[in-house]
Amino acid sequence: MKNFADKLIEAIVNKKSVAVVGLDPRLGQIPAFLKEEAKKEFGDGFEAAGSAFFEFNKRIIDAVESQIPIIKPQMAFYEQYGKAGIEAFDKTVKYGQKKGLLVIADAKRNDIGSTAKAYAAALLGEVELAEGKKPCFDADSLTVNAYLGTDGIKPFTEACKQFGKGIFILVKTSNPSSGDIQDKELKEGGTVFELMAEFVKKWGAETIGEKGYSSVGAVVGATYPEQAKSLRKIMPQSIFLVPGYGAQGGGAKDVLPCFNDDGLGAIVSSSRGITFAYEKEEFNCKETEFEKASQKAVEKMNNDINSVLKENNKLPW
Amino acid sequence: MKNFADKLIEAIVNKKSVAVVGLDPRLGQIPAFLKEEAKKEFGDGFEAAGSAFFEFNKRIIDAVESQIPIIKPQMAFYEQYGKAGIEAFDKTVKYGQKKGLLVIADAKRNDIGSTAKAYAAALLGEVELAEGKKPCFDADSLTVNAYLGTDGIKPFTEACKQFGKGIFILVKTSNPSSGDIQDKELKEGGTVFELMAEFVKKWGAETIGEKGYSSVGAVVGATYPEQAKSLRKIMPQSIFLVPGYGAQGGGAKDVLPCFNDDGLGAIVSSSRGITFAYEKEEFNCKETEFEKASQKAVEKMNNDINSVLKENNKLPW
Repeated sequence: MKNFADKLIEAIVNKKSVAVVGLDPRLGQIPAFLKEEAKKEFGDGFEAAGSAFFEFNKRIIDAVESQIPIIKPQMAFYEQYGKAGIEAFDKTVKYGQKKGLLVIADAKRNDIGSTAKAYAAALLGEVELAEGKKPCFDADSLTVNAYLGTDGIKPFTEACKQFGKGIFILVKTSNPSSGDIQDKELKEGGTVFELMAEFVKKWGAETIGEKGYSSVGAVVGATYPEQAKSLRKIMPQSIFLVPGYGAQGGGAKDVLPCFNDDGLGAIVSSSRGITFAYEKEEFNCKETEFEKASQKAVEKMNNDINSVLKENNKLPW
Repeated sequence: MKNFADKLIEAIVNKKSVAVVGLDPRLGQIPAFLKEEAKKEFGDGFEAAGSAFFEFNKRIIDAVESQIPIIKPQMAFYEQYGKAGIEAFDKTVKYGQKKGLLVIADAKRNDIGSTAKAYAAALLGEVELAEGKKPCFDADSLTVNAYLGTDGIKPFTEACKQFGKGIFILVKTSNPSSGDIQDKELKEGGTVFELMAEFVKKWGAETIGEKGYSSVGAVVGATYPEQAKSLRKIMPQSIFLVPGYGAQGGGAKDVLPCFNDDGLGAIVSSSRGITFAYEKEEFNCKETEFEKASQKAVEKMNNDINSVLKENNKLPW
C-alpha cells in the first residue's frame, strides 16, 4: 500500500505545482446555462443542484487536471442538497481520481473513537455490508478536527496506515476568529495551536513515507505567516494544507514560511478564486467558457507561488 | 418563531423525561430479519443498509416516542452508506418530527464562516435553489465543534435565531482522551474547556427563551462529573447534552451535577444501551421484538435518572 505523503509529493513534482483547487460550488455563482440545463432535466430542486454541481466540477477538473496534483471538494456545499448533493460529491471524488488527481475530502470530521471509526470507514476506508466490506467515498485524504484528542484521531490514522490515505488536522485555521481558542497561551508554555501541532507530530510518526513526510498533515492558514514559521519547526515532517490564499487575503509570500527548505511540505488551496474566476474581468472569459478562466487562474496561481519559491531557492523540481 | 430551548423544556416536562435516544445504527447489530427483508428488496449493498437502518429506527421511534422528548441520530453511521445512508438519516429526522419528537443532528460540524453558513443552511435552515429557498434536513438542533472560534459559530447561532433551532457546542467530551486538549490549563487561568464554556455563554446570550434557557447548549460528558460542576456554574443558562451514560460508563449519579437546582438544564443521551438493548438478557426480548427491549431500556433509564433527581429535590415536574 503506497503511502499518501509519497503519492502527494510525486504528484507535486510531476505537475510542478503545489496548488489545491477547492471545489466549493455555490448555486448562486454556477453559470446560468448549467443551471438551465439541469433545470430542464430535473426541475428546480435538489437533483438539479446536484447535477449542476457535478457538471460544473467535471468541466473544471477537465480544464485544470494537468496543472495541479490535488483537488479539495468541501462537503458542506454538497450536504446542502441532501442525497442529491452527496451523490454529486461522490461523483466528483471519483471523477477527479479517474483523471489522475488526488482528492482531499474537506469535511473536518471529528467524534469519539467508536464514531470516528465510522467516519474513517465512510470517507477513507471500507464500510461493513451484511456480508463483507466495500469502500464508500474512498477519498485519498480528509480534513479532521482534533478537539476530542487522541482516541478521536486514532481511527483516522489507522485508516491512513491500512489504506494508504492521509489526513490534515486543523492546527491554526485561516479565519479571523481562529485565535479565540487556538492562540491562547498555556500554563505549560506555548499556545493551543502549538500543542495541537505537537500532537500532529506524534500521531503522524508511524505514517512517514519514503520521502520523509508523514501522511498526517496539518491545516495552517496562509493568513497567519508568523505562526506558520513556528509550526514548520514543530512539525518538520508534516505536510501543511494551507487555505486562505486568494479570496481570504493570503498571498504567495505569506505561504512561503509553510514550506521546508526542500520546497516541499505544503500545498496551497484556493477555491472561489479558481472556480469562479470567470466572474473576474482580468481573465476575460465568457460565462460559457468558465473553465478557461479557471485554467488561467490556476496558471497565475502556479506562477505566483512557484516564482516566490524559486526566488528563495525552494523549487523542489 | 418559538425558541428551541423553550420547545425542549416543554417536551421534557410533558414527557417527564430528560432522556435522549441516540440512533447510531451499526449494521452488525441490526436484527438479522430486518437485514434479510432489506436484502430481498435491494440486494447486499448501500441501499439495503439504508433501508434496514430506517426500518430499524422507525420501529424504535414508534416504541419509545411517548417516553422521551428528543432523539439524536449520529450522522457518521449514515454517511458510511453514501446517498442511501443520507436518505435514511433524512427520513429518520422527518419521521421523528412527525411523531412529535425533537431531533438533534449529531454531526459535530465546523468550518470557517462562509462554509459554516452552508452547514447551517443544510442542517438547520434553508438552502438556496435556482429560484427561492427550501429547507433540507431541517433538524431541530445540531452538535457543533467550535475550535475555529466565533466567526465559525455565528452562522449557526444566526440559524438558531432565524429558524427557532438549537446547537450544542462541544465543551468537555465524554471520551477517555478528551483531556488531551480540553483539560489544558491556560496562562490566564482556567482550562481550555472552561474557556470554551465562557464562549458558549457569550454566543448563547441572544437566544435565551421565556423559560430562561439558551438555545446554544453544551456537550458535557457524563464521564466527567467533577468538570460538570464547574461548567454548570459558568453556563447557568445553557442546556447540557450529556453523552456517556450507559455504554460509556456514566451512571445517574454522575449526570446529577449537569442539572440546575430547578431540575432542568440537561438532557442525557444513550445510544447503544437503548437501541441494541435486545442483545441483553435482562430485557428478555427476542430479536424480532427488539423495539420492546428498547422500550424497557428507556423506562429503566428514565426511572434511574428521575429517581436520582427526586432524591435530590430536582424533579422539574
